[in-house]
Amino acid sequence: MAEETMRKDENVVYIGKKSVMCYVLAVITQFNGGAAEVGIKARGKVISRAVDVAEIVRNRFMPEAKLKGIVIKTEELTSEDGSMSKVSAIEITLSK
Amino acid sequence: MAEETMRKDENVVYIGKKSVMCYVLAVITQFNGGAAEVGIKARGKVISRAVDVAEIVRNRFMPEAKLKGIVIKTEELTSEDGSMSKVSAIEITLSK
Repeated sequence: MAEETMRKDENVVYIGKKSVMCYVLAVITQFNGGAAEVGIKARGKVISRAVDVAEIVRNRFMPEAKLKGIVIKTEELTSEDGSMSKVSAIEITLSK
Repeated sequence: MAEETMRKDENVVYIGKKSVMCYVLAVITQFNGGAAEVGIKARGKVISRAVDVAEIVRNRFMPEAKLKGIVIKTEELTSEDGSMSKVSAIEITLSK
């Protein structure tokens, strides 16, 4: 049971520079693996890709999936030279 | 009064290819002009810029502004050659 709870936290797909369909597949795989909800997280320029992923999952593959929530925030990153920079981030949560 | 109502619909800032601060200024100008809420709309790759604008307005210029809602959707565009393409879109609504 505790393991089950821990696993829940891992139901997150982090969006990077791969193709949109890679992440769509990752989300669907999480749902098929029993996840009740999946978070799609992105920061910076790939935020638009996170929206694409959520929309494609909902419209093309899982019409029953619901948009549970969208959170936007600002995260601080420390670059290699020690300077701080701020970057916007999004988390889109889908549930079925 | 009717005019006032009509003007409400125009409290939207469409994100394009200009710098983030242009749109931040546009949002603040709308609030200073009396708008109770301002919508920030973007589609495609500039969605991330819309999130930047909302975050910068809230964190740097108007800490009292609230995130009223975020909507994501898919819009269909007809290109010049008549073919249809789908594009993700976001609308972030700030209120004060």
